[in-house]
Amino acid sequence: MGIMPFYTAIVTLLAVAFCFYLAARVVFARGRYGVHAPAVTGHPEFERIFRAHQNMLEWMPLFFVPLWICAFYLSDRVAAGLGLAWVASRIVYFIGYTRAAEKRISGFMIQTTICVLLFFAAVAGLALHANG
Amino acid sequence: MGIMPFYTAIVTLLAVAFCFYLAARVVFARGRYGVHAPAVTGHPEFERIFRAHQNMLEWMPLFFVPLWICAFYLSDRVAAGLGLAWVASRIVYFIGYTRAAEKRISGFMIQTTICVLLFFAAVAGLALHANG
Amino acid sequence: MGIMPFYTAIVTLLAVAFCFYLAARVVFARGRYGVHAPAVTGHPEFERIFRAHQNMLEWMPLFFVPLWICAFYLSDRVAAGLGLAWVASRIVYFIGYTRAAEKRISGFMIQTTICVLLFFAAVAGLALHANG
Repeated sequence: MGIMPFYTAIVTLLAVAFCFYLAARVVFARGRYGVHAPAVTGHPEFERIFRAHQNMLEWMPLFFVPLWICAFYLSDRVAAGLGLAWVASRIVYFIGYTRAAEKRISGFMIQTTICVLLFFAAVAGLALHANG
Repeated sequence: MGIMPFYTAIVTLLAVAFCFYLAARVVFARGRYGVHAPAVTGHPEFERIFRAHQNMLEWMPLFFVPLWICAFYLSDRVAAGLGLAWVASRIVYFIGYTRAAEKRISGFMIQTTICVLLFFAAVAGLALHANG
Repeated sequence: MGIMPFYTAIVTLLAVAFCFYLAARVVFARGRYGVHAPAVTGHPEFERIFRAHQNMLEWMPLFFVPLWICAFYLSDRVAAGLGLAWVASRIVYFIGYTRAAEKRISGFMIQTTICVLLFFAAVAGLALHANG
């Protein structure tokens, strides 16, 4: 535990890179669909892109916190593997959401499942630490 | 400071668990009140649940950052104790907000006070560290 | 890497302090412009203040994550220097946005550039770590 989890740090930067991309998509969607700040509604295409970005932000604490507790207390590789799957599920979610609101569901279910798995992995890591 | 703050990690996971619960409440409220994504307005009950979740997310950086700086630089137990009180105040806030918008105020005042206390505890921790 | 990045911790608390200020401005703007919770629209002045706060929150993961990876893997001072510039750019952004929506642009460009720089500094830090 004296060293930083290296693979988890890489996956963390991948998640941040995808969020940069979503932020850029929101900026471009403002121009394309004529939704001027501070408005965040007014065109359904814009609203789906905006909400896809927001939803990723909303889930970031539920992802990053268990991810890093898992990385420190259980395993860097387990955390990084689940983290990579999470980034992939957020890409699936975004592609689905940009097509139609209903098409966001499967990506959402996968990303939620991964966050729950990471949560229990973090709890397991803390339990092991308490007993050893 | 070479070891991870154990009690603070537990309280952090409790805060995350409550945020999972709020995210689930928003999902169920969409169905119950017929507010379909990407809309986030349209029914007052839904809007209060949605905003209660959002507000917790908005305060997470103002909670987690001072919490962990306090845990590392001042005391794991002080951080964990205040952190536990914060989670309780967010539950009070949520229960109040789901009843009526005005009933969110007392929980909000308590959670704000705890975040301010954690902030000054974090500053104190850094000041001690700089002097010693 | 066994010690906590001290200057980065100070800059992190500065960013949190400014976010506390923005949260307070939103609370006061609700009263001043008569936008009662759970509504987050209804008056253009309120909406610009609300969105300026939201936008800072949206960028926090894109700031804090690269900031701390840079601090741990590359340099505490580089991270803290860029972090201080980011807080300044968020102040510029907020002052601009409260005046007119278009006046947020220059602050936004600066803060985005700094987050991108921090991201590449974090990648460089991880690359150095992998090779050495």
